[in-house]
Amino acid sequence: MPNVEDLTERVRAFAHERDWQQFHTPKNLAMALAGEVGELLAELQWLTPEQSAQVMADPELGPRVRAEIGDVTIYLVRLADVLGIDLVQAALAKLADSATRYTVEAARGRADKIKDA
Amino acid sequence: MPNVEDLTERVRAFAHERDWQQFHTPKNLAMALAGEVGELLAELQWLTPEQSAQVMADPELGPRVRAEIGDVTIYLVRLADVLGIDLVQAALAKLADSATRYTVEAARGRADKIKDA
Amino acid sequence: MPNVEDLTERVRAFAHERDWQQFHTPKNLAMALAGEVGELLAELQWLTPEQSAQVMADPELGPRVRAEIGDVTIYLVRLADVLGIDLVQAALAKLADSATRYTVEAARGRADKIKDA
Amino acid sequence: MPNVEDLTERVRAFAHERDWQQFHTPKNLAMALAGEVGELLAELQWLTPEQSAQVMADPELGPRVRAEIGDVTIYLVRLADVLGIDLVQAALAKLADSATRYTVEAARGRADKIKDA
Repeated sequence: MPNVEDLTERVRAFAHERDWQQFHTPKNLAMALAGEVGELLAELQWLTPEQSAQVMADPELGPRVRAEIGDVTIYLVRLADVLGIDLVQAALAKLADSATRYTVEAARGRADKIKDA
Repeated sequence: MPNVEDLTERVRAFAHERDWQQFHTPKNLAMALAGEVGELLAELQWLTPEQSAQVMADPELGPRVRAEIGDVTIYLVRLADVLGIDLVQAALAKLADSATRYTVEAARGRADKIKDA
Repeated sequence: MPNVEDLTERVRAFAHERDWQQFHTPKNLAMALAGEVGELLAELQWLTPEQSAQVMADPELGPRVRAEIGDVTIYLVRLADVLGIDLVQAALAKLADSATRYTVEAARGRADKIKDA
Repeated sequence: MPNVEDLTERVRAFAHERDWQQFHTPKNLAMALAGEVGELLAELQWLTPEQSAQVMADPELGPRVRAEIGDVTIYLVRLADVLGIDLVQAALAKLADSATRYTVEAARGRADKIKDA
């Protein structure tokens, strides 16, 4: 099964083959990431929360959401590669930080305590 | 080394311990993802492309960018978990699709050919 | 009552007094706009649709949402000023275009018909 | 010349004629706004800052950027209408607040002082 490192190499090769390194600054890639997240939002924006929970069962919407998630992942992986950041390590570090700020006792069932996780 | 599956389980446990499943609909998580990407953009918005390429060497900005990448990753992993999507597979599928739409010959060095990859 | 033109001049003066024109390229301002929209999303992300409809009545959230709307407006006005675009005219032109694509008959009560308006 | 109030009424009539009030919660409209800002970013993401400053002179990109600005404005105006917020007043209030936080003396030519304006 391919993992994030494999994906990172594949995306890097894809970009290099097309001589796109010149466009792939962190600034540009962050914009591209935001653009793809915008497309993801557009697929979900008019759904109720309940409809959104069933979106993958919809034969038309499901594949579109999956494709948008794929695009978001591609740009996030590419951005992390260019920045020299290990995505999983960065996320685990942030999660450890959040665990101290949002303790189970204080945050249980409280939406206003989950700004960052 | 922890991988995406490990991270997915850790984020899921983090949410369940705090009884946050009720807030974690795909719609809400997509909004949270967009919010975190917005924070990432805010760190890079006034930098030149060249400055952005060196951002990780900055003792103040580097850790902030890494933390934002961590937050984005957490929400993307959580969203994929809730949707039942394998992030790496979804990205590889999209990359294969992009390879047919943006052939090396047609896309080499052309920024206007890279809307989706 | 001040109008959009007055606001545009005030925002422009604010930027010029601080010698910020150098940072205010369309690219950078679009990123800043996206960052502010991200902050707006963060205020609404965990609310139910019904709660979001009452958000201005909340003594804590209401002023925060209003402040984020203010920030979004400031950057949109500034971006339009730098691009030489009249916001109201651009919106009316797009609305006229949408009226032909989403006729009342075809679009009534259909969320899937409202991707662009 | 139509102003923001006229635009607000036109957008409201457009939505009501199509019975779209049911979809136009603040939460949904904020997502739609973010989606449109994402499309705007996509038009600018691969441009250099210098190219972005000339984008309106491009016969293909210029009209596309103007259309995206139109879409962003439509959703911002609609969101403000639904929230009962006066856009110009909200922006002026925020600008007055920023003037005290970013004094001309402290902020002149300093990008790191302009997170919020």
